[in-house]
This record gives sequence, structure tokens and C-alpha cells, in this order.
Amino acid sequence: MTSRSLPTNATLADLGEFGLVDALKERFPQGDNVLLGPGDDAAVVTVPDGRVVVSTDLLVDTRHFRRDWASALDIGHKAAAQNLSDINAMGGRATALTVGLAAPPDLPATWALELADGIVEEAGLVGASVVGGDVTRSDQVMIAVTVLGSVEGEPVRRSGARPGDVVAIAGRQGWAAAGLAVLARGFRSPRALVEAHRRPEPPYGAGPVAAAAGATAMIDVSDGLLGDVAHIAEASGVAIDISAGSFEVAEPLRAVGAALGADPMRFILTGGDDHALVATYPAGTALPDGWTRIGEVAEGSGVTVDGAAYEGPAGHTHF
Amino acid sequence: MTSRSLPTNATLADLGEFGLVDALKERFPQGDNVLLGPGDDAAVVTVPDGRVVVSTDLLVDTRHFRRDWASALDIGHKAAAQNLSDINAMGGRATALTVGLAAPPDLPATWALELADGIVEEAGLVGASVVGGDVTRSDQVMIAVTVLGSVEGEPVRRSGARPGDVVAIAGRQGWAAAGLAVLARGFRSPRALVEAHRRPEPPYGAGPVAAAAGATAMIDVSDGLLGDVAHIAEASGVAIDISAGSFEVAEPLRAVGAALGADPMRFILTGGDDHALVATYPAGTALPDGWTRIGEVAEGSGVTVDGAAYEGPAGHTHF
Repeated sequence: MTSRSLPTNATLADLGEFGLVDALKERFPQGDNVLLGPGDDAAVVTVPDGRVVVSTDLLVDTRHFRRDWASALDIGHKAAAQNLSDINAMGGRATALTVGLAAPPDLPATWALELADGIVEEAGLVGASVVGGDVTRSDQVMIAVTVLGSVEGEPVRRSGARPGDVVAIAGRQGWAAAGLAVLARGFRSPRALVEAHRRPEPPYGAGPVAAAAGATAMIDVSDGLLGDVAHIAEASGVAIDISAGSFEVAEPLRAVGAALGADPMRFILTGGDDHALVATYPAGTALPDGWTRIGEVAEGSGVTVDGAAYEGPAGHTHF
Repeated sequence: MTSRSLPTNATLADLGEFGLVDALKERFPQGDNVLLGPGDDAAVVTVPDGRVVVSTDLLVDTRHFRRDWASALDIGHKAAAQNLSDINAMGGRATALTVGLAAPPDLPATWALELADGIVEEAGLVGASVVGGDVTRSDQVMIAVTVLGSVEGEPVRRSGARPGDVVAIAGRQGWAAAGLAVLARGFRSPRALVEAHRRPEPPYGAGPVAAAAGATAMIDVSDGLLGDVAHIAEASGVAIDISAGSFEVAEPLRAVGAALGADPMRFILTGGDDHALVATYPAGTALPDGWTRIGEVAEGSGVTVDGAAYEGPAGHTHF
């Protein structure tokens, strides 16, 4: 059965495993770097510099996304973005993805196909292809994405920050968290924030640029800014101070803060899911375009905001 | 918290996400080809020949494994074996895995750690390392494994079989299916078959050997022998005839067939999950050690057994 002949109310059970796989494969264009795409026991992708960068993330229904809050297309964008961002954070460029989908048999087939479209669209932003995957039955919708990529120079780790380095950020920060706060209260606006939650816009390319500019450490903000900065501080054995005043508080964040009676800086300091990058650079480095200084590295340990401990939830953990 | 201090009845919720990740990382030794292992945004693995082979599989509790039928260690072996086999089937050698685990918070922590041990042990059989992963909360236990590997020459696809080729198999076939039939009736013996279901023994290395010997097509048997042979026939645009008499019916299969009133050839012809390899070779090829001739390729389409259609379920599909 091709997707063209699919009744709009068909479920995965109607389509069947092989029908679903065939309909999905049609949706996955293959880039020049793909020697063998979906349909065999494994895919084959070129890795010109002899090193492959790899990362995996799981997304579970009701925990990482809600099907009543976001479209399948949005969830596909988000699932891909979250993984592509991990390659960005190493200073690399993503080239290929594999996608696993576990879902109940009564899931609308269109949902699965639109999810695939979202993943393909987001991957296309960086020129990456979906080269393989797996579909199976489960009680709860779950998406497993693995991304492969390349780095040109040395991968930028979390552990290279040194006292005296400056801390900088690339990309929006706090928008997705503010959008989530809005959705959690049953609202659908400001639209820009809700969209930021549904479909993050990671600063693709900022990672390789940072690596080329000499970034000493880098991470993508997925657990919350202070939480992820703490990962750099811990891995590097340093202290990091963030200057709250270095962030411009965008108007929609102000508006939501006022409406919800919340400090909008909380979205910025503790929000994740925008997939901004935070990096450290040697003092005196001319920061590349798109990067803004937000703090500095010192001897010691821990993360402070304007020299003091920041109170409040610093991030998100599972279990 | 280190695994050493873990109370035996601790759950994932007791351990916490970061506690679990730390305990898992301790269990993942890294091979020489791993430039950067778990703990950063992504891992980095060397790929000497500039091409990476990649495959992904999902395993869902009660569908792909049952926690009352197999230990966590066995399930770890099985999860890894299933993926490593996909690289074997391309004629490649696996080098690295990523593992995603989604699980309810009340899962015993020891279960997750023993699962990891099983994956590490199985990966160690081929010298592959677990380089990264993700853990998250879900209602149902699910394991997502992605495997990376290398091929020396050309990867062996499903589509290269030509009329006149001979069909050959490497590895045990039907044992896991017979073991499943035994377990499904509430028995635990013959032990060799139950063990074969719990922990397959794919013929690692037979894939690269077949590739070097000039195999024209290859697949791993995971959906059932006839079903997977049909994948080769379809991808290659050929007909394949299997000779039932070419299989030795091992004694445990005979015993179970007699006990259950089933034809033991059914386990061999329709069983999956042993992860045997089936390959086609040009006529006249001296089959490498470990490979046995089981049939031949002709013009046409479809799969026959001794020249006739085989009746009965040919394989397994999800949804």
C-alpha cells in the first residue's frame, strides 16, 4: 500500500508493518554521503575524516511531548532537533539519522507519516538524511533517534573550560520553557513561545563555528541553562559565574512572566529545550557571530549567578 | 551513588537518573577505536575506511522479551546480538553501540545494570564498545540499540542474488523458535533450546568471511528463514528454492517436535531469532567454513521448498 492510497482514518494496524515501512522509506530522501539507505540489514554512510560522532535520545509520549499540545510534524522536528543539537554541541555537523518508532496499533498512520516528515524536514536543515530505523508495537508512543555526524578538528568536550575563560551562548534561551508554562496553564499564546516549545530552533552551525574559533568546552542546553553550565563546571573542575544582566529579556518572555506572576529570568536560567549552545572561550577571543558573552570561568567549583547561588529548580531529571 | 553501595532492592527512582547513568558508565569499557566514550553530548569513534555501517532495533517488554522468561543479563545479550547480527549480515564488523533504555521508575536498578552487563558481554564477543546512550521514564520497558560498524570491501546487500547462485546458511536455525514454543507451553526444557531463545548465538564473523568469499547477497534470519529468504528473492528479482533435506534436524528439535506434535522442520523453515545468516554465492564457489548449502537461485520470483509452495506462517510482523 502506498501512502497515496491510504485512507485518512487508517491506523498502523491497517497499514501493517511492511506497509508502514514502505510508506516511510518513500519519505526519506538520501544525501550524497549515503552509500546505502533504508531497506537492508544496515545502512552505509561515508565518514570522510575517519571519525564518526554519534548520539542517541529517546522521546516518550506524555513525558517529552504531548500529542494534544503539538502536531506530529512538530514532534518530528523536535525529535530530530534534539539529536542534531548534540552533534552541534561537539562542534560537528550531522550527516545521518536512524529512527525507531514504537507505537500502539491504533495510532493513526498519518500521525506516524507526519512524524517522519517533521524529522526529514528538520534533518534537511543541516543536510542530514534518515538512513534507517525500526518500527514496532508498544503500549506508549516512543521515538528513538540516533544521529551520526562528522567533526573537522577536535571535538569540543565539556571538560576543557579553564579559569579565565569567558562563557558565551548562541541561540534563544528560555523561550521553550516559557511556552511550556503557557501550555501547562491551558493557553496557546503568545504564539512565538508556544511555537518555540513545539519546534525548537537550535543554532545549527554555531557549534562548528565555535570549535573553529577555539572554544575550550561546549554543551547544548537541554536540561536547563544552569544545570548544563554545571555539567561544564563539573567536567572541567572549575567554577562558573553567569551574569544575569547579560541576557536581553525578550518581550514575549516579559509578557508571560507578568501574566503568570513569574520572574522571566527563571525561564532563561532554568529552561531547557531551546537547544541553545553554551561554550567557553579563552579570554580575549573575538566571539564569533551569533555568540554573546554571559559569564566567566574561575577556579573553584559550582555555578553562581551574579556571584551568588541561584535558588530554585536548576534542571530536569528523569526518575 | 556507585553500584557497589546500591541496596539490592533499590529501584530506578531510588537511584535517580544521574545515579543510573553513573552506574552504567562504570560498566562500559571502551575499546581502542573509541576516541570519546559516554558522558559528553556525543561519542566519537574511529572509522578507518571512511564508511560507517549503522543499524537500529527496538525491543519492547512482552513483545521481544519477557522478564519472567529470561534474565536481564540474557535480555541484554539478546538486544545486543540482534543488532550486532545486522552488521554481520552486511559483511561488516561491529565497533560501537549506543543504548537507550526507557523504563518505569519502579524497575529494580539491578535489572537495568544486569541488562547493561549482558549488552557489554555480547558486544565484547566482537570487540565492540557501548559508547553512549540515554535513559528515560516510560510505562513499559523498552530498549533501543544502535550499532555502528565497518566493512572492508563492498557491503553485501540483499539485492545481489543472481539465477544460478547457490544459497547457503551459517549458524543454528530453528533453535530459538523451538525454545519459544517450549516456553509458551510453560516448560523450561530442553534447556539447550530455551537457552537458544533467551540468548542467541549469531555466527559472528561468518558475514565478513562470506563477503570475502564473494557472497552476492546476504541477510540475517530474524523474521523466519523463508520470510527472510523472500526478502532476498524480492530485492534481487529472483526465485529461490530451499531443499528441506539439506538441514540436519538436531536431536532437541526432534524431541520438541515429537512432544508438541509439531513438524520440527517448521521451526527451521519459519523460525527467527537465531540470527543465522543466509547468503547467496556464485555457482562453483567453495563455501567458506561454517557455511552449508541449502538451496539455489533461479529466474522468476518467490520462495519454494523442494519446488513447492510451503504452507504455514512464513514469518512475523508487527501491527
